[in-house]
Amino acid sequence: MRSKSSKHFKITLIGAGNVATQLGLALIKSHHQIIQVYSKRKQSASKLGKLLNCDFTTSVKKINTDSDIYIIAIKDDAIEELSKTLQLSDKIVTHTSGSISMEALLPISKKYGVFYPLQTFSKNKNADFKNIPICLEASDVATLKTLNELAKSISNNVQKINSDQRKTIHLAAVFASNFSNHLYTIASGILEQKKLSLDILKPLIEETAFKIKNNHPEHMQTGPAIRGDKKIMDRQLKLLSNDKKLQIIYKLMSQSIIDSSNQNKL
Amino acid sequence: MRSKSSKHFKITLIGAGNVATQLGLALIKSHHQIIQVYSKRKQSASKLGKLLNCDFTTSVKKINTDSDIYIIAIKDDAIEELSKTLQLSDKIVTHTSGSISMEALLPISKKYGVFYPLQTFSKNKNADFKNIPICLEASDVATLKTLNELAKSISNNVQKINSDQRKTIHLAAVFASNFSNHLYTIASGILEQKKLSLDILKPLIEETAFKIKNNHPEHMQTGPAIRGDKKIMDRQLKLLSNDKKLQIIYKLMSQSIIDSSNQNKL
Repeated sequence: MRSKSSKHFKITLIGAGNVATQLGLALIKSHHQIIQVYSKRKQSASKLGKLLNCDFTTSVKKINTDSDIYIIAIKDDAIEELSKTLQLSDKIVTHTSGSISMEALLPISKKYGVFYPLQTFSKNKNADFKNIPICLEASDVATLKTLNELAKSISNNVQKINSDQRKTIHLAAVFASNFSNHLYTIASGILEQKKLSLDILKPLIEETAFKIKNNHPEHMQTGPAIRGDKKIMDRQLKLLSNDKKLQIIYKLMSQSIIDSSNQNKL
Repeated sequence: MRSKSSKHFKITLIGAGNVATQLGLALIKSHHQIIQVYSKRKQSASKLGKLLNCDFTTSVKKINTDSDIYIIAIKDDAIEELSKTLQLSDKIVTHTSGSISMEALLPISKKYGVFYPLQTFSKNKNADFKNIPICLEASDVATLKTLNELAKSISNNVQKINSDQRKTIHLAAVFASNFSNHLYTIASGILEQKKLSLDILKPLIEETAFKIKNNHPEHMQTGPAIRGDKKIMDRQLKLLSNDKKLQIIYKLMSQSIIDSSNQNKL
């Protein structure tokens, strides 16, 4: 439950993609006021404005100056571009990116910070922010305090993370999430070739992610590589003989599993 | 709920590892009778015998002949070895392997089959078999019927899968589960170098696995590679400059994500 004393902030959302949408919904749910949504694409801006029941604009110049906090949730590349035109002098401005430095916001305001929700967001699936880690960083103590108040109103897992740590976390997230998801795609492709559906693997995929909740993944490793089962690995490589790229991934990942296991034995 | 008419089988478990243990527990729960456990390692045999409240042996010659079904859950390599010494003439014998042909059991009995539970099993974590797909294959219709009855008594997801399909499923499982788990290990290592814990990524890992329940993973792909964000990819590769192996994995997986996305555009 939110403490009764927690503030309700006036917020402007800059961006109308998955992160802006899910964040906007969570903020409204915690009784903050979304004043305005900006997106350079009119359709996106108007759609999110409607969803969040607020004003929208497609012009940087028309971004209002009435909000307490401006949350920039646009593509990493676009942040630098935006910082050339947006001026908010003493308003708090944050971005939500895992890999952009906090200082990228310096041209926009003297009070700036990072509000990085560590999750993969979809358009069609509402996120439950309570368990989503929010990584905070700020230019000064007062800004950090405000961002902390905002973050805690939607999540039970708020952490102070500096830019260096955040970049490391983002890199690790690419391996653990983006690359894993691609492995699911590869698995699906392998199955489809034999007219089988990924459905049969879904309980396994879920359990694999679940198991590491209370166990180090290194101790949960199973499969032919960790068993050193060369026969099976050779047989599986043969099954992939019509796809050289998958063979390379198979070899590389298997070797990496064998290497980490050997490292532990040393 | 189990139907009242379902049979209770007498079962011998050959093997005492994760699969044998979890399968044994599930079978007892469904009121089947485990007659005996075999393992060549006395400690394992005795431990599982105690857990399942049944006899145990470490000698292939002393494997009883009173059971209806013999389930071989040992390492793939050991199945062939065992088939040279074990003789069960007309008893039903099955193995639980994803990659060994059903015919490997031919020397043991004329009634043989495969009982392949598609899950990753741990010693310390009891498996809920209800949702675990069990892939069945059998030498003859009567044997398949019996195995089907046994499988359905513990799982709601029983499928007839031939050896060829099963090998494909096992290969896909290596990508989706074994390799994903290794990516979690890699992510953990990256974080540990900066004294950060994998805990911060766990909600993301869970959501990544959850998202594909109702969506094709290809449509759920996020991250710098699918966005074609070369700046971030170059920056992340630089962060990995002290680990050539991780750089290669990063490049290969990113390129594979880009390739699949381009393929879809064609």
